[in-house]
Amino acid sequence: MSLTSASPLECAQSAKSASHLLATLPTSSRNDALTSIHAALLSSRESILDANARDLESARKAAADSQLSSSLVSRLDLNKPGKYEDMLKGILDVRDLPDPVGQVTLRTLLDDNLTLERVTCPIGVLLIIFEARPEVIANIAALAIKSGNAAILKGGKESTESFVAISTVISQALSTTAVPNSAIQLVTTRDVIPELLALDSEIDLVIPRGGNELVRYVKDNTKIPVLGHADGLCSVYLDPTADPKMAADVIVDAKTSYPAACNALETLLVHKDAVDTIFPTVASALVAKGVELRCDPLTKAAAQTIVPNAGILDATEQDYHTEFLSLTLAVKVVNGLEEAIRHINTHGSHHTDVILTSSAADAERFMAAVDSAGVYHNASTRFADGMRYGFGTEVGISTNKIHSRGPVGLEGLMIYKYKIRGQGHTTAVYGEGEGKRRYRHERLPL
Amino acid sequence: MSLTSASPLECAQSAKSASHLLATLPTSSRNDALTSIHAALLSSRESILDANARDLESARKAAADSQLSSSLVSRLDLNKPGKYEDMLKGILDVRDLPDPVGQVTLRTLLDDNLTLERVTCPIGVLLIIFEARPEVIANIAALAIKSGNAAILKGGKESTESFVAISTVISQALSTTAVPNSAIQLVTTRDVIPELLALDSEIDLVIPRGGNELVRYVKDNTKIPVLGHADGLCSVYLDPTADPKMAADVIVDAKTSYPAACNALETLLVHKDAVDTIFPTVASALVAKGVELRCDPLTKAAAQTIVPNAGILDATEQDYHTEFLSLTLAVKVVNGLEEAIRHINTHGSHHTDVILTSSAADAERFMAAVDSAGVYHNASTRFADGMRYGFGTEVGISTNKIHSRGPVGLEGLMIYKYKIRGQGHTTAVYGEGEGKRRYRHERLPL
Repeated sequence: MSLTSASPLECAQSAKSASHLLATLPTSSRNDALTSIHAALLSSRESILDANARDLESARKAAADSQLSSSLVSRLDLNKPGKYEDMLKGILDVRDLPDPVGQVTLRTLLDDNLTLERVTCPIGVLLIIFEARPEVIANIAALAIKSGNAAILKGGKESTESFVAISTVISQALSTTAVPNSAIQLVTTRDVIPELLALDSEIDLVIPRGGNELVRYVKDNTKIPVLGHADGLCSVYLDPTADPKMAADVIVDAKTSYPAACNALETLLVHKDAVDTIFPTVASALVAKGVELRCDPLTKAAAQTIVPNAGILDATEQDYHTEFLSLTLAVKVVNGLEEAIRHINTHGSHHTDVILTSSAADAERFMAAVDSAGVYHNASTRFADGMRYGFGTEVGISTNKIHSRGPVGLEGLMIYKYKIRGQGHTTAVYGEGEGKRRYRHERLPL
Repeated sequence: MSLTSASPLECAQSAKSASHLLATLPTSSRNDALTSIHAALLSSRESILDANARDLESARKAAADSQLSSSLVSRLDLNKPGKYEDMLKGILDVRDLPDPVGQVTLRTLLDDNLTLERVTCPIGVLLIIFEARPEVIANIAALAIKSGNAAILKGGKESTESFVAISTVISQALSTTAVPNSAIQLVTTRDVIPELLALDSEIDLVIPRGGNELVRYVKDNTKIPVLGHADGLCSVYLDPTADPKMAADVIVDAKTSYPAACNALETLLVHKDAVDTIFPTVASALVAKGVELRCDPLTKAAAQTIVPNAGILDATEQDYHTEFLSLTLAVKVVNGLEEAIRHINTHGSHHTDVILTSSAADAERFMAAVDSAGVYHNASTRFADGMRYGFGTEVGISTNKIHSRGPVGLEGLMIYKYKIRGQGHTTAVYGEGEGKRRYRHERLPL
């Protein structure tokens, strides 16, 4: 890992060159590099926490001047109980995942002694732009090395001291391994981002991990493919056959367990026949958790039968297009399943959407027709997460319609190549006519 | 299928809406639509060939005025022996392929009664811009319907009469099926392309099938992901251990069996120890087929020992960056395998590259280290083709580093969604602490 002072072009070119080496390293070399990084971060804990303390001090001053939110300050702190240990454990967790490189996913006998294989391989060079949480740099470096991808990292400026300290330690650790230092590079100044985004010959994929504004900026300013999501406008559709307690539990979890998350609930669609039956129970549970409801007239009237005053407001049309990221929920009546599906497909962000119903047929219809990365039956939107899905970790959650969708783990950082092994085979001898050879196209076991 | 006169936005919005319906149609409905299209095109052969004759007449006039190449005129002709039949057969071939929609590719038990599935689904709305060959429209319509994707098609203007005739027939055929007409739309004027390329909320993927200039134009003018290739600069590396006759056969096939194809050979890299041994045989075979060789001094000298005069020119540096698409081949000496790999990774277009050697170890090293969609050992570059790979057909060949790489068949037009089926599961109950639930993360059989 190098803390680069090279030009963006030099940085990207050396990453490209490192990616070619990294792609051919055996599993053991990539795993050994992660073992070394783990050991080095373990033994350098003190100096890294010192650097982190300097970031924290600046951040607290900025927070005192109201230039920074206190929740951001809290996220910077690497010294919170268990946080450093989690960072260390994350590196070993990634190391111990199955190697995603070199998996054969298709094998076909084209003709005698002529075989076709589709084999997974790294994408190449990733540009990952992320927020201030300092432990993320170790996590992403581990994911990149394990997946055989070179990565250029740009973290939030509030953690610069921590990033530089961690990056220096990782760099020293890598220098004793087969992974080239330039495989993972840290850039610390924001002004290089536009130049990096212009390097579509060298950089293969950009992953912006951050707010809507960052993601849109990146999408609007590069020809490099972008993986990620700008919005997380998740919805729940409440069917009248749903169990009321189950509905309240799931909706409260989806809305309140981490309201700032991209997989938190933002819009509740209530079937007209559930407005006076289940919805009041749900509304009462939400208001008890401090949720402000923005309702249309029917749901407002129904909610007020149970929670007469506080927290029930009139919704505007804009509320049904809004990712609140806070304890606010838009609520709307729909006439049935098809209207709910249409609403979600046109108002949602194709992230994660839920149907609460006891009808398996309606659930299957909803999950087939809703065009989102995650479609759930009787489960919280908050399950949309690489760790929860069992991917070990994730580089982000994608609402893209190509490549990777939903939580993106190691598999999402891979592409494939086709290998053909022949014995001098040529194409002109194949065809439909007389005397022409035919392809065998036999699927072989993997 | 509709021949649209709607605005680009209306066209894209109706395609989006149709894509939502199409995505949920059962296999049988999509297959029935292909059966109907086949029957309609069979019974409308005469009127379609009449329209094609009008295109041909205009094209021949343009060719006489040197405004059009005679090879293009030839590609327009649907009345060539077997061409119409091939078009018809292609529709049934696609129909009879396995359904790519709804395949479960991952199934995990997250916890008791909580399962995660990854299920293939269509991407959504494709914008496909292609050349003049009129039969392509039927082929692409079949691929789109089979894969459950809506498609907006824009074909080359030289085939407009043929496209309109085929499109009208397909449209009538679809009107008796469950596939909505707006699922496949033809636009006939070029001026709508910039407007369509701006509709990144409605259109999910652009596939430009055409020359370098078209592909670059599309990539430079849209935020929609683009699948395809601008260049096909394919190379062969000739190792001294290769069998000379095998080498000559493969190189002649790769260069001459269809020089205008993107998978044709453009650069031959000769190991220094093969220059005086195998290369003269190869050069002689190429020159006998009318190939012009652009050589560096060493290979030029060696070639001239066998083919003293004609067809051997001095190469310029630019020749090693050139996709000739004709009977011209750049030839260069390299010092060994690693130099060949570096040359290909820096000069090639990441399409298809070949090593000719009797060393299995060198072949494996080459195939691991060359960063291309196709990497072959002792086989012609011309195998890079969806039909030859056994995919039935292809929508194009991709040199992208994400999503689909190499020949793109039905599978390449799919994405996936994650489905979770629970019984009211919430996330807040899971964690590391005491009294918290743990995920089971058990892989279930597919």
